[in-house]
Amino acid sequence: MLRSHTCGELSLEHVNQNVVLCGWVQRVRDKGGMVWLDLRDRYGITQLLFEEGKTKTSVLEAARSLGREFVISASGEVIERLSKNDKIATGAIEIRVSELNILNPAKLPPFLIEDETDGGDDIRMKYRYLDLRRNTVRKNLQLRHQVARHTRTYLDELDFIEVETPVLIKSTPEGARDFVVPSRMNPGEFYALPQSPQTFKQLLMVAGFDRYYQIVKCFRDEDLRADRQPEFTQIDCEMSFVTQEDILNTFEGLIRNLFKNVKGLDIPEVPRMTYADAMRLYGSDKPDIRFGMQFVELKGEDSDLVSGKGFSIFDDAELVVGIAASGCASYTRKQVDELTDWMKRPQIGAKGLIYVRYNTDGSIKSSVDKFYSEEDLRQWVEKFNAQPGDLLLLVSGPADKARKQLNELRLEMGSRLGLRNPDDYRALWVLDFPLLEYGEEENRWFAMHHPFTSPKPEDIALLETDLGKVRANAYDMVINGVEVGGGSVRIFERELQQKMFGILGFSPEEAQAQFGFLMNAFEFGAPPHAGIAFGFDRLCSLFGGADSIRDFIAFPKNNSGRDVMIDSPSTIADAQLKELAISVSSDAKQ
Amino acid sequence: MLRSHTCGELSLEHVNQNVVLCGWVQRVRDKGGMVWLDLRDRYGITQLLFEEGKTKTSVLEAARSLGREFVISASGEVIERLSKNDKIATGAIEIRVSELNILNPAKLPPFLIEDETDGGDDIRMKYRYLDLRRNTVRKNLQLRHQVARHTRTYLDELDFIEVETPVLIKSTPEGARDFVVPSRMNPGEFYALPQSPQTFKQLLMVAGFDRYYQIVKCFRDEDLRADRQPEFTQIDCEMSFVTQEDILNTFEGLIRNLFKNVKGLDIPEVPRMTYADAMRLYGSDKPDIRFGMQFVELKGEDSDLVSGKGFSIFDDAELVVGIAASGCASYTRKQVDELTDWMKRPQIGAKGLIYVRYNTDGSIKSSVDKFYSEEDLRQWVEKFNAQPGDLLLLVSGPADKARKQLNELRLEMGSRLGLRNPDDYRALWVLDFPLLEYGEEENRWFAMHHPFTSPKPEDIALLETDLGKVRANAYDMVINGVEVGGGSVRIFERELQQKMFGILGFSPEEAQAQFGFLMNAFEFGAPPHAGIAFGFDRLCSLFGGADSIRDFIAFPKNNSGRDVMIDSPSTIADAQLKELAISVSSDAKQ
Repeated sequence: MLRSHTCGELSLEHVNQNVVLCGWVQRVRDKGGMVWLDLRDRYGITQLLFEEGKTKTSVLEAARSLGREFVISASGEVIERLSKNDKIATGAIEIRVSELNILNPAKLPPFLIEDETDGGDDIRMKYRYLDLRRNTVRKNLQLRHQVARHTRTYLDELDFIEVETPVLIKSTPEGARDFVVPSRMNPGEFYALPQSPQTFKQLLMVAGFDRYYQIVKCFRDEDLRADRQPEFTQIDCEMSFVTQEDILNTFEGLIRNLFKNVKGLDIPEVPRMTYADAMRLYGSDKPDIRFGMQFVELKGEDSDLVSGKGFSIFDDAELVVGIAASGCASYTRKQVDELTDWMKRPQIGAKGLIYVRYNTDGSIKSSVDKFYSEEDLRQWVEKFNAQPGDLLLLVSGPADKARKQLNELRLEMGSRLGLRNPDDYRALWVLDFPLLEYGEEENRWFAMHHPFTSPKPEDIALLETDLGKVRANAYDMVINGVEVGGGSVRIFERELQQKMFGILGFSPEEAQAQFGFLMNAFEFGAPPHAGIAFGFDRLCSLFGGADSIRDFIAFPKNNSGRDVMIDSPSTIADAQLKELAISVSSDAKQ
Repeated sequence: MLRSHTCGELSLEHVNQNVVLCGWVQRVRDKGGMVWLDLRDRYGITQLLFEEGKTKTSVLEAARSLGREFVISASGEVIERLSKNDKIATGAIEIRVSELNILNPAKLPPFLIEDETDGGDDIRMKYRYLDLRRNTVRKNLQLRHQVARHTRTYLDELDFIEVETPVLIKSTPEGARDFVVPSRMNPGEFYALPQSPQTFKQLLMVAGFDRYYQIVKCFRDEDLRADRQPEFTQIDCEMSFVTQEDILNTFEGLIRNLFKNVKGLDIPEVPRMTYADAMRLYGSDKPDIRFGMQFVELKGEDSDLVSGKGFSIFDDAELVVGIAASGCASYTRKQVDELTDWMKRPQIGAKGLIYVRYNTDGSIKSSVDKFYSEEDLRQWVEKFNAQPGDLLLLVSGPADKARKQLNELRLEMGSRLGLRNPDDYRALWVLDFPLLEYGEEENRWFAMHHPFTSPKPEDIALLETDLGKVRANAYDMVINGVEVGGGSVRIFERELQQKMFGILGFSPEEAQAQFGFLMNAFEFGAPPHAGIAFGFDRLCSLFGGADSIRDFIAFPKNNSGRDVMIDSPSTIADAQLKELAISVSSDAKQ
């Protein structure tokens, strides 16, 4: 090795030893004939000391010539520091350098390689290899490695086998968002990159593999948002001869294990909630349950405390629903107006916001007390089970819309009231998703999860009568309001699978052409099976306490799907196009 | 769970327990009022017992109705077997079944799901999910999982970090064998799939990651042979601040660790051999050192024991080289003739084969004793250090050609003499490869490893004078004659890298356009670094004692790059082509 130790491991016990360190120059201070140099590597920072009169002149001069991010090796003796720095692991010692080698000089970096950098997104992406030198980014990738490692350990101990499924697969008409790859050996034909290994993992169950997992790259050619990447990573899992209950227990175990081993946290048991309850109580299929503030309906399917008093907005509404914000009865008029404006922004689109103050003195005041008597309002307050000091915030309208709007408001109030502590982790299973959802535009039914999800046995009869009411054996894991994983018990009989494709608008021929291999496989002894997939990038960002997944990916792409560091995608040579038997449309050429 | 136990875990200690098993019907025997059923899952086989008079009639009838590969669940009591089968783990017990459920019936499989199957390659590939049910194939993938697991454990303990590098990268002109992916968001532009993560792992070193690895899919659009796949997996590694010696020690450690943990074998220390010696002594850069039979030169650079005796073939030859096959002096004329014919086949293309018998009685006989006296031949025998009973086999001609031919003969003789025991594993480091090789057709120099490989410091001056003589800091690991991995100490200075691209025929502009990001990175403080990559599929097949990698890949492609199970690649819709701004050449359409 070029070094005897790393920059993160020397301490008082090494004093008097001769060592060789390698690393990057983080900082040089030159003062009163002394030069101190912070030498950095992945493992830490060690201080090097050069001193006029004690250090060879050539070495001292070399030290003074060094710039930031020069790569050097330095030999010398470990000595105890006079003024120790207990903020870093090596803060008790320094190295009195006797030899110094410049392994590679460095141009001045285009931004500061510090936790708080002065570099904007674009420049940091272009010089990603420099951005990755920053502690914060490096730690994200180290955390990612730990999450992967503990995931594998947990699953290996449960007899799961990691099996690699192919990356060059078949394009499907459902997969409008497939990336495709022209085949040189089969001119005019294309592979597709997998959006998930779904059918392959099911085939592995048919093959008897019993417990499969894979930490695997998946691909989706979607218009990108800040938290989407064209290539992303899943923890993909499947089990045979299990019920939904087994999946929930096994993977609740995984998540608890990860929190324990990666974050040192014992998270509370993971409660379960039906999709219907999640929508009713939180207006979202991924509720943040770090705080309460559950929805209360003043007018809905079961009750009506608002109609017939002359307030036409409520009279006409399908749903009147609200939350009680604790301690907010004291909000000023301005504050309430500001909240109302916030709700009226186009992103949310509420028509307005009705409030009821339940003051600490017990009095009640509302923006609609023109229409409702104090007794009416007291009934509302009771329905909310509100406490003095609470501010009730109500929205109304078509049920779906009102719930969606109130979900936004609830999350906003949770943030404003400091109820969404990022160090507090609350996981939740959401169960019993609808099997199908109707696409108004396309005028047909879509699988809410995917076409391989099984209906709940007790709802199978509804497949003939009321598709919208059929619930699926599907489940999502939600942590702090973020969907981190989801899965389902699968269909494993050919007949039912064929029926599903029919419902989704496939002709029998189309279904057979696209998914015949899977339906055929079901005829040769397919076991009951179920599975789940976790968004690995998202899970890592959650563990890292960050919102964007990009910081947890070594070489991410930007919102146009470009890697600006390597300048990809790019044009390719005509000869290559010719060999692949394709050409670029003339209007795409520049 | 649908089952209480797996089919591989019940033994005498479970007798009298009630259990539920799930699995596939392997075999049913119906004899004298008794029905025995072998139930199979991934973990093993358990015998189920049904007995007239003791088993409920409906259950017995159900058992008799079962076909091969039906998926069932069966409940019953564990009882001790009368006649035990000590070949299987559960052979001491059977299950007296009280309840039987058919979870899924099965059509008759198109081939036998047994270790020795009657299914040909094509049908087994089409029904790969059935082929994967066979013990032998399943065990290959389990072994693969173990190799991956122990690789990660070993590297994790040495502070390596697994970092995922992108799959959608940039096509390079060198990469004529790139698979490309049209970008919808960037019309007319393409991503490429990586042939290896080479530049990214080097950037990770520049980023200070210090020790990187990744078990990663790579892609190469080559005409396929039996042991090549368009997508394959590498164990990809890189280290900073190390010498070649550190790499060799670290990864010799990995391989020894894998043999220990996966095969339970302590393999001998890994010897090292220069490329020059490997070529001189074995005529191959991947010698099989399970046996000796090293080359001996009768005429070469240092010696000449053959010229001037009137045998023009030897007189004119650049090289006369041979091997001594122990105990083969007794070969009949017919045997020798057959060997000669074997060498003359077009695949090898030798003009002939000269032999010298060194008989057990000490006498010497040769096919060329017309030209050479017994004294001459005795000199040859001495040069070979041959023993009585040896058969010397000699080839001659241009040095490269003769060595190549003799390499084939040596391997063949090793096989015929039983010297290539597949359970004997001998690893070898081959070092000091040439940096460059000359492409006669293209009339230019090519990097033998890749353009990022550094020349040996002592040979750098030769870059100006004799490119063919420059040795690289490059190394291959060879096991039993198979190259399982290779790597190099990398160039880490911009200037040298630029010079290399120049030697390889890049203009400075081309080099900058294609690899500017890497050369720029070298200017911002790149550490000395080196790495290696192992062919993971190949390594697994070696551990599994098989020649083809295909059996160690869950869903392989055939020699035309097709997955015949899912029928991929395939045509895609015109709408999709349009969205991707490409079209298929008319001559490729059917």
